[in-house]
Amino acid sequence: MEPHPREEGTMEVQGVPTRTIWLEDDGWSVGIIDQLALPGELRTATLRTPIEVAEAIETMRVRGAPLIGAAAAYGMALAARSDPSDGALEAVARRLLATRPTAVNLRWAVDRMWAALRPADPAERAARAYALARGISDDDVAMNRAIGEHGVKLIRELAARNPDRPVRILTHCNAGWLATVDWGTATAPIYLARREGIPLHVWVAETRPRLQGALTAWELAGEGVAHALVADSAAGHLLQRGLVDLLLTGTDRTTAAGDVANKVGTYLKALAARDSGVPFYVAAPSPSIDWEVDDGREGGKDRGLERIPIEERSPDELTFVEGRDPSGARRRVRIHPSGSPAENPAFDVTPARLVTGIINERGIASASPEGLRGLFPERSRSAGKEVGAPGP
Amino acid sequence: MEPHPREEGTMEVQGVPTRTIWLEDDGWSVGIIDQLALPGELRTATLRTPIEVAEAIETMRVRGAPLIGAAAAYGMALAARSDPSDGALEAVARRLLATRPTAVNLRWAVDRMWAALRPADPAERAARAYALARGISDDDVAMNRAIGEHGVKLIRELAARNPDRPVRILTHCNAGWLATVDWGTATAPIYLARREGIPLHVWVAETRPRLQGALTAWELAGEGVAHALVADSAAGHLLQRGLVDLLLTGTDRTTAAGDVANKVGTYLKALAARDSGVPFYVAAPSPSIDWEVDDGREGGKDRGLERIPIEERSPDELTFVEGRDPSGARRRVRIHPSGSPAENPAFDVTPARLVTGIINERGIASASPEGLRGLFPERSRSAGKEVGAPGP
Repeated sequence: MEPHPREEGTMEVQGVPTRTIWLEDDGWSVGIIDQLALPGELRTATLRTPIEVAEAIETMRVRGAPLIGAAAAYGMALAARSDPSDGALEAVARRLLATRPTAVNLRWAVDRMWAALRPADPAERAARAYALARGISDDDVAMNRAIGEHGVKLIRELAARNPDRPVRILTHCNAGWLATVDWGTATAPIYLARREGIPLHVWVAETRPRLQGALTAWELAGEGVAHALVADSAAGHLLQRGLVDLLLTGTDRTTAAGDVANKVGTYLKALAARDSGVPFYVAAPSPSIDWEVDDGREGGKDRGLERIPIEERSPDELTFVEGRDPSGARRRVRIHPSGSPAENPAFDVTPARLVTGIINERGIASASPEGLRGLFPERSRSAGKEVGAPGP
Repeated sequence: MEPHPREEGTMEVQGVPTRTIWLEDDGWSVGIIDQLALPGELRTATLRTPIEVAEAIETMRVRGAPLIGAAAAYGMALAARSDPSDGALEAVARRLLATRPTAVNLRWAVDRMWAALRPADPAERAARAYALARGISDDDVAMNRAIGEHGVKLIRELAARNPDRPVRILTHCNAGWLATVDWGTATAPIYLARREGIPLHVWVAETRPRLQGALTAWELAGEGVAHALVADSAAGHLLQRGLVDLLLTGTDRTTAAGDVANKVGTYLKALAARDSGVPFYVAAPSPSIDWEVDDGREGGKDRGLERIPIEERSPDELTFVEGRDPSGARRRVRIHPSGSPAENPAFDVTPARLVTGIINERGIASASPEGLRGLFPERSRSAGKEVGAPGP
């Protein structure tokens, strides 16, 4: 196989443009930023088997709905390289799909890979798989960039309304470039606003238990965006005191009705934003839209909420915390009593009624069946199983 | 001075009934449970000067609004013993009042001590101060017990409505016996319900950044109450999925209008409880009611919210976490990037409109000016500065 050219990213780490996932110079193994070492240390890793990809997703060495999709695509490519038979590829697809149930990008990417590989002759599958995985990565970059172009308009409007102070944005989890191949979803408008010179201040909710807010803070520091970390619980206080102009997050799965599954805690922030009259926008590229869940609200109840599987992760993520001791060494400490159980639901669903709008690569829409179908007219008649539209 | 008898508590630690604060056998120094060592280790400490008391309050070796009040009272007693002059006592009062601005119990206790000591001859002040401090402690125990008797009725009703499963209670921070002299405020109804044999399950929000939820979990384990720790952000998901019957917290300051200042994050949980139709009760003994802030809601806005000082604590509380390494040693690790600032507001204010009721030692009232004045008819005509009613 011909070696593929090494991908170049936009986001810089120590002056070097970087993506979060790439094909290594050998032309077949897959390089990643190992996000478990961040924010203390920037470390890369090489994945050589589909099982290594599945484990990297499960343990969150790669994380973020769009990046999980891109990684799974490369997992299928690694599988096609070692055993391109139907049985082997189906087994790998099942293994990948089992890693993290909530983000629909994973299913989207695996389905798309398998739909493209199945008709192909096994001998051609590896080349086709690598090309498609690379295409999924490139599409992700283009979609996020387009989300940035649409979303920055909202930030420009807020800046024009309050010329004497920075636009204050609250975000949750990491929907940054680390969660995607490049740019990020929720951060793309922020990074473009920063490049336009719009004064910004980003409140970063630390996002227990896994503290992905630390990743967002690390990204923002790298891009020179003013920010401060806060406890997840502080979001209500900040909103209530008028210290936030915009709540902006990503999503792991947004239904056709506009209900938003995202990192647990998003729903609480959305409630507080509504209570304070602050708009809440969700950056949702089309692979994160689940057209199969569309039942929305009925009889005064949010029906779509219970159809999205909510991943339950290990209680150890709550009970133990890893950080750096004064020497810089990674250390894991117990913070909760050994006699007490813990539970760790990793996502929640914010009903569409609390979402001001969805920022998609095609534009900004209301969080409603009509709003989303307005962006995707090809979805109006068919709500079936076909693969989503291929990008901007 | 005669040695005072050692106080006996109700809550047991390793089979020994314990209070959180007591007069030592020497009859003058003050013993405390050092809460910085919990939940990993039960350690006591002895405070011998008012400055040591102030530092113990600031660093949260003693914490919880009612216990802060009791500790401050003993701080005044230690001051009266070493220098009973007006100037010295006023300086100590100021030092104590500066430690933690949000909990009104602190001001209540210091004002009450000073009002009792000022008319007294300096030579008699020490004896009077120790007697009054002991009285404040004993009153706290009695008030919490009375809150328990009133609050357990709510739990009994919930149990009767759902006989096939435990009553599921969500709480935030630690409003347990560790936050008071004994019994706790929000936990008193829970401990009485447990003694009645009512099946319970308590969801304990871990309460970042200081993780007081770990203290609540440790208490509940000690009392044999089924419970699970969850991330603060998980509260919305639990409420939304119908897994909570009652939200029950303490308060650091409740206004005469029923607005509730409590550990940051309470407001988010109250919003989610309202959104899911789950009742939210606040256990508020009378020393935590601030009769001077009573303006409530006007013109559709929550007016009382901005009159309560919100303590800003060190960002280090967010950036560093202390826990136990595998050997059991305490270790402090950095969890957030060194290039990122943090902000740490420690409280928020939940508007009365989100609070179902206030559980006071005199009974349960609606969170409204009328509701609270119904319990305290002596407040109806005067909203001045006098000391609150002395207990149940």
